[in-house]
Amino acid sequence: MTLPESAVPRQTLAEQVAQSLARQIREGALQRGDRLPSLREYMRLHGHSKNTVITAYELLAAQGLVEARHGKGFFVRASVPRGSEAEEPLPYTRALDTIWMMRQQFVREPARAPLGEGFPPVAWLQDMRLDRFTRQVLRNDANSLFRYGNRLGNPALRQSLVRRLAGYAIDGNPRQLLTTHGANHALDLIVRRFVAPGDAVLVENPGYYPLFGKLQLQGARMLSVPRLADGPDLQVLEQLLRHERPKLFFLQSVGHNPTGSDISPVKAHQLLKLADEHDLLLVEDDALADFKPSSAIKVATLDQLRRTLYVGSFSKSISASLRVGFIAGSRERIEELANLKMLLHTSCSELCERTVDVALGEGYFLRHLTRLQAQVAEATRAALAVLDELGAEVLCRPQQSLYLWARFPHIDDAEAFTRTTLPQGLALAPGAIFSTDRGQANPWMRLNVAYLQDPLFAACVRQARGARR
Amino acid sequence: MTLPESAVPRQTLAEQVAQSLARQIREGALQRGDRLPSLREYMRLHGHSKNTVITAYELLAAQGLVEARHGKGFFVRASVPRGSEAEEPLPYTRALDTIWMMRQQFVREPARAPLGEGFPPVAWLQDMRLDRFTRQVLRNDANSLFRYGNRLGNPALRQSLVRRLAGYAIDGNPRQLLTTHGANHALDLIVRRFVAPGDAVLVENPGYYPLFGKLQLQGARMLSVPRLADGPDLQVLEQLLRHERPKLFFLQSVGHNPTGSDISPVKAHQLLKLADEHDLLLVEDDALADFKPSSAIKVATLDQLRRTLYVGSFSKSISASLRVGFIAGSRERIEELANLKMLLHTSCSELCERTVDVALGEGYFLRHLTRLQAQVAEATRAALAVLDELGAEVLCRPQQSLYLWARFPHIDDAEAFTRTTLPQGLALAPGAIFSTDRGQANPWMRLNVAYLQDPLFAACVRQARGARR
Repeated sequence: MTLPESAVPRQTLAEQVAQSLARQIREGALQRGDRLPSLREYMRLHGHSKNTVITAYELLAAQGLVEARHGKGFFVRASVPRGSEAEEPLPYTRALDTIWMMRQQFVREPARAPLGEGFPPVAWLQDMRLDRFTRQVLRNDANSLFRYGNRLGNPALRQSLVRRLAGYAIDGNPRQLLTTHGANHALDLIVRRFVAPGDAVLVENPGYYPLFGKLQLQGARMLSVPRLADGPDLQVLEQLLRHERPKLFFLQSVGHNPTGSDISPVKAHQLLKLADEHDLLLVEDDALADFKPSSAIKVATLDQLRRTLYVGSFSKSISASLRVGFIAGSRERIEELANLKMLLHTSCSELCERTVDVALGEGYFLRHLTRLQAQVAEATRAALAVLDELGAEVLCRPQQSLYLWARFPHIDDAEAFTRTTLPQGLALAPGAIFSTDRGQANPWMRLNVAYLQDPLFAACVRQARGARR
Repeated sequence: MTLPESAVPRQTLAEQVAQSLARQIREGALQRGDRLPSLREYMRLHGHSKNTVITAYELLAAQGLVEARHGKGFFVRASVPRGSEAEEPLPYTRALDTIWMMRQQFVREPARAPLGEGFPPVAWLQDMRLDRFTRQVLRNDANSLFRYGNRLGNPALRQSLVRRLAGYAIDGNPRQLLTTHGANHALDLIVRRFVAPGDAVLVENPGYYPLFGKLQLQGARMLSVPRLADGPDLQVLEQLLRHERPKLFFLQSVGHNPTGSDISPVKAHQLLKLADEHDLLLVEDDALADFKPSSAIKVATLDQLRRTLYVGSFSKSISASLRVGFIAGSRERIEELANLKMLLHTSCSELCERTVDVALGEGYFLRHLTRLQAQVAEATRAALAVLDELGAEVLCRPQQSLYLWARFPHIDDAEAFTRTTLPQGLALAPGAIFSTDRGQANPWMRLNVAYLQDPLFAACVRQARGARR
């Protein structure tokens, strides 16, 4: 992830919303007499709270740009000559925090040291010969490739996934597996099936921010469970369960994004006990499973898919260009999710699914994982050494993890720090991005272990220390 | 599409809902003391009206299976011994009409004459050499295939799409194009961005039923505009615009599914005038464009994407296994839809998009379309001759269309007719499926021109005539 300096937010959300609307008025997209979206519409579209939207509209009213008409909503009051305000125009989507942050993922910035990236370096994946795999797919039975695929996903691939789950000591059958266009599509289907507007939903804080955006879009109320070095904070979880009665908890037990931490076996056990007691459905997003030894403890391994929906993906270990992920769960839940997937998106790509199936077969994948994990382990070790040398505090010291979660005693706000390092070619993912309370200054940062050895990182950290003195 | 006899509905929707829940109680999925989903939950999940759900719950109460507890909802009253009712168990999803019907698409029935199918025969597509195309993609720059694709879609493909639109005399630029996982994904994104629960939305009747399901899931109120031989009924449309003030109209102007009819130029013009007058956004689903001459008049050609979102797909003309479709529209609307796509599903498959881009280039596709259209035209001509010979009434006589919409004087209910022909190996798509009022007996059927020459069809029609006498 790359955060161009001009785009790092320094305002409240309401201010950003107001500024974005002001820009649209200034540029003529909204004209004198136009009605602004109703509070409900705006909340629904952008996932903001009512307060945020009201505050934004009131800010605009205070600037004389809009007026409230009783019972009818807010209307644009005047056309403002272009350029009459000193502020920079903002991109349309700035108001929508998550969308804005996700867009940064797609900006291929030529940052020299992309420590904020969510991906492994391409060099770590290149031994996966996609050309060989698709050639094999197209040699065998290319004619079946003109139709829709199977509703649940390619049957051979689902068999391969059953074997992969067995490698994690999770028992399942092909009817308990549904393929998706990657982990995000999986999360979207789960949110749409199991979350109603207004529902309270548990998330980890810090956590996977594209999930936050999906929940906001669906109108869910997010309840934050602090993520500790050994998994979610169960005391807070229990209190939230007692007082808010949420039905769903989204978590990443292993290789947690952004912290790189793994749940401890005892905590996984206790979490499941709590889930049983409070009839909680767990969504275990394990998109980084392939970066960890298969022996890493997963909640779904203890639970055996009774009250867990297990989400997997090959985007970061085979190729993100195939868009193949999956959900494993009870047959009933998978059946319902399959219906929803079919209704909304028909089926996934049979070509891509068969390509992944070939990739998973014949030992290619095992050899690839052995190499990949050795590289991750080596990079993790080296990265921790760099961080120790620099006097960083790390939340945890995993044996192998694509990410580390670190802070420095002399850096109070990682976002401000990122603004100073970007012009030098060092891109970071500041902790505020992954936080459910984004307004707060946050000293943490997510660091991609593959790039931590770049001396630019150490230089920037030392430079900040010098400036502080 | 194939409709196994046992699965053709013969009950009201409320009866189906009640029966499905009764089965769940019988099978123990719902147990004594369990609360049924609230009306709101059930409506949201299944897209049924409040009345349908209330009626269903009252039917169950009348059967003594559930009881209402004041202010708390409906609860399961008793466990019923398995098999105590004579009725067949129904699949879980039977209650959800659209899901149930879509599932039939995925059943590869060995019907001898699949006249109900929505697809061209594979033989019509086989000249598209997918193996050659993917080989070319993977030869050039395979390394870029490990990351997410572009947020709007592969840039080269969007350039190719601009050229295709130009072939329809629609001007656009690559920023006005967003790729999707096929036309259904496109419709889903549009529904989620532009339809709020409770919104009135115009649809054609008969029309594309997977769209109906998406609208029901979103909680929209569907307003039906009759589809005539020359396009939508503009008198009804105008009345609905005046009285219900809908903001959105989903239509298929060319090669309409199920009727195969095309909008007349004058009607396209009048429709746009009405849309201007009432500030109506048009969603023109043109998933069958490649089966028609490029000169066929489209609403988007007259409108130039001002108030039209144009949806295209290559599922039926290249391969459904690639899942590549697109939306064209104003830059602002495409930008918003791109944000939503990114938030929900990250990006589409770069491999599949580049494969389609190769397929569209170097004359392959033009040669393919020439052959495809000649086959469609020939099959249409032959199919109309068969229908004339059998004394059918057809809604329209297109020069070339994958579908024809026909009825016979001696067949009042195409669904009942389908039940008699299925055991003989003749699968049909009865008109009720495509209707917004599915309860009504409907004499029409959608016929795939590729299979109409099979003598089994004529034999079944004549047999029904004999039975009537």
